[in-house]
Amino acid sequence: MSLRSFFDPKSVAIIGASGTPGKGGYALIENMTKTDFKRKVYPINPKRREILGLKTYPKINKLPEVVDLAIIVINNEAVPQMIDECGSFGIKNVIIESGGFAEASERGKELEKDVLRKARKFDMRVMGPNSIGMIDTSSGFSTPYVPIEAVKKGRVAFVGQTGLLESVFIPLIQNIGVSKVVCMGNKCDVDECDVLEYIIDDSSTDIIAMYIEGIRDGRRFIKIIERSEKVLIVLKGGRTTYGARAVSSHTGTICGENRVYDALFEQYNIIPVKSFEELFDLVKVFISQPFPNGNCVGIITVTGAGGVTASDCCEDNGLEIASVSSRTLEKIREVYPTWAPVKNPLDVWSAIEKTGSEEVYRRATEEFLADGGVDAVIPVIGAVSWMELDIRLFLHLKKKYPQKPIILVGLLGEPDILLRWKKILEPEIPVFPTAERAIKALALLEKFGRKSILKKNKMLRNPH
Amino acid sequence: MSLRSFFDPKSVAIIGASGTPGKGGYALIENMTKTDFKRKVYPINPKRREILGLKTYPKINKLPEVVDLAIIVINNEAVPQMIDECGSFGIKNVIIESGGFAEASERGKELEKDVLRKARKFDMRVMGPNSIGMIDTSSGFSTPYVPIEAVKKGRVAFVGQTGLLESVFIPLIQNIGVSKVVCMGNKCDVDECDVLEYIIDDSSTDIIAMYIEGIRDGRRFIKIIERSEKVLIVLKGGRTTYGARAVSSHTGTICGENRVYDALFEQYNIIPVKSFEELFDLVKVFISQPFPNGNCVGIITVTGAGGVTASDCCEDNGLEIASVSSRTLEKIREVYPTWAPVKNPLDVWSAIEKTGSEEVYRRATEEFLADGGVDAVIPVIGAVSWMELDIRLFLHLKKKYPQKPIILVGLLGEPDILLRWKKILEPEIPVFPTAERAIKALALLEKFGRKSILKKNKMLRNPH
Repeated sequence: MSLRSFFDPKSVAIIGASGTPGKGGYALIENMTKTDFKRKVYPINPKRREILGLKTYPKINKLPEVVDLAIIVINNEAVPQMIDECGSFGIKNVIIESGGFAEASERGKELEKDVLRKARKFDMRVMGPNSIGMIDTSSGFSTPYVPIEAVKKGRVAFVGQTGLLESVFIPLIQNIGVSKVVCMGNKCDVDECDVLEYIIDDSSTDIIAMYIEGIRDGRRFIKIIERSEKVLIVLKGGRTTYGARAVSSHTGTICGENRVYDALFEQYNIIPVKSFEELFDLVKVFISQPFPNGNCVGIITVTGAGGVTASDCCEDNGLEIASVSSRTLEKIREVYPTWAPVKNPLDVWSAIEKTGSEEVYRRATEEFLADGGVDAVIPVIGAVSWMELDIRLFLHLKKKYPQKPIILVGLLGEPDILLRWKKILEPEIPVFPTAERAIKALALLEKFGRKSILKKNKMLRNPH
Repeated sequence: MSLRSFFDPKSVAIIGASGTPGKGGYALIENMTKTDFKRKVYPINPKRREILGLKTYPKINKLPEVVDLAIIVINNEAVPQMIDECGSFGIKNVIIESGGFAEASERGKELEKDVLRKARKFDMRVMGPNSIGMIDTSSGFSTPYVPIEAVKKGRVAFVGQTGLLESVFIPLIQNIGVSKVVCMGNKCDVDECDVLEYIIDDSSTDIIAMYIEGIRDGRRFIKIIERSEKVLIVLKGGRTTYGARAVSSHTGTICGENRVYDALFEQYNIIPVKSFEELFDLVKVFISQPFPNGNCVGIITVTGAGGVTASDCCEDNGLEIASVSSRTLEKIREVYPTWAPVKNPLDVWSAIEKTGSEEVYRRATEEFLADGGVDAVIPVIGAVSWMELDIRLFLHLKKKYPQKPIILVGLLGEPDILLRWKKILEPEIPVFPTAERAIKALALLEKFGRKSILKKNKMLRNPH
């Protein structure tokens, strides 16, 4: 059964709608109706006649139509009864935003079981409990308290057992561009397999980034992944004893054996990450950069120490420092003082003093991109106001050499400068504050690309 | 022989002084004389009569006095001859800023050998070549192009084979506060042992943070470290084959066996880091936080997923999630809705909805700090504008519980908010954008503190 009614319902009931600004049941309606006029929104509230200009209904069975989706934000104890009322009226899709279920206590676990039992009776799909729902930039539907116009359309779907992606992290997601964000909460019914199945057929999504605490049905998960051609990046919470214990008071999920997940991810070319930072770093690189032809990197850096630490990091992550042709080096040497060494990693400091930052970075980056031995280029620039160059030069070079990844490093320094560069370059060229983060992301891009090609070749040889 | 004349010379000659704004030999004089009036600065330039209001001298031997320090910024080929001239005149301390020596070519290696041979003849100490010198906030002396008033006084010395610390990274060092910054360059003469020996007796320094590509005299290094009571954090460049190769075109240093360094650092409680980011993270934590009594952490977080990933990271880094007393949990439960679980890691979301961010974070942090089972507290707060709280509440708590480390996490979100929090809290309380960075730094603080106590006990038992 498709989840379409969750992502693009024609009509929605808000059970627990509130007329008090600041309450969840108020903000939800406010955000849902502010920019989205194409669907019907019905607030359910026995004490008021209207909320935000919408007529309210005292009970679900007084609605003029059977809505596609009901969103429940009432107290946990009252939820099972409400599932009965929704089911009796014919509603087939429900999001439970309320907390106080399996994540909270033994009583909560019972309530959650009760909810599920009742839902099954009516053939009803339930997302949550403890879920703030979804944002869909294609359909324009949004259930969290975040106004959908604050979310930039893009080609990445974020799926998680957390509302973090739809609250605190919104400004970060914003830089990337989003197709869908889904918070599954406790996954009493709708789980990662249901959501993945829906999203791998979604033409607006290229990359799926997930935070999960457990996969319920491994076999089904594998079947879905096997027919998917999208990039899947996964942050698995609860890898450790402490982490697994914390999971039980978050969503009540069973975490499972860590090494089983490791093996699963390795075999099916799913990219595992250890933190949200890494998750966003990878998404930024995968959404904007082509797969490199090989693992040979050209590094252009403002300091010798930067070249040294970047080289260490490349080797740590399985990348090679590219051998650059003598022709390339000759072309670059033109902007250098005679005494200075010209090689990869390229320390541009002495050249900057002679020729100026902009000309040196343009020349070096372009020659590295043009060199057949270089598979990807990482220009490292001090993010400081005295570094005089028009950062858009990298956009021109990206257009000229679209087949090779460029990842820019605006080396720590002044945070304002870094933010400005991000604004100008991203999402075309990802910008990181350290070479280490850029190198790690590039290494995973290379590994994933290589494994994808192997997978495709194998599929060609052994057609199903 | 002390390096005092490098850090606090009474008189300085600038060989290669320039009257052209934008040139190194101009900026150097400009910055050195702008705020520092207590020492004599003599520009050496045969073609001009004055630079920036200072009388110039055509040759070093025409100076009215033998200066404490000469700084050389002329072309590499002319440097050996200039060493002869300085030595003949009686100058004992020289910084060579010029590049084009061992880091550049075979010819440069010869030039460097020549420089050293001549310097030895005159009993002269040479820093560099390829060094931009030092900043000393106590003496007010500064040789890089950075105005010394831009550098905040503090208790951390940064020592490196790179000018990065005195250029791009200045805004970051700024937040921490600096006693000295030293760029040793190629270390043809003055090396890390000379500088360490000087700085471990420097009463204005508590922490020494180093970037090095090699240690020349291991035995001497150990002797110095053994009598030091300062914290030493080291980023060793050239750990890998590629890194070592990059070192040869940076400072021409020999990197040595990686495992020898690992063993050395482990035995002498030197803290190794793998990136500049980690170097600054540790400095921020070590300079402001006490050593914890144990490895049990209290984590307060805005989301369940945040608690899960932080728990995973704690276990990865050898920290434990603290068992919190039931009295503590009772006190915290007062700000929670009845259905919500209260434990460590503590998810405050439901409490915020009931009681408000500020009261919840204050209550939870204070109760965790007061609990005997908790050795350190990490509050994780979404760095977003809708999170309403006065961040200074943590400064009050720090004063009340000075014996326990607090490290704040302003979780990604809006960069402006994070910068504002850093400005208000640092250096008293370090602020990181991810829990992972806070946890890694805390784990190293705990390990270092534990080993330091062992070392002191051992010293008491076996007095030298």
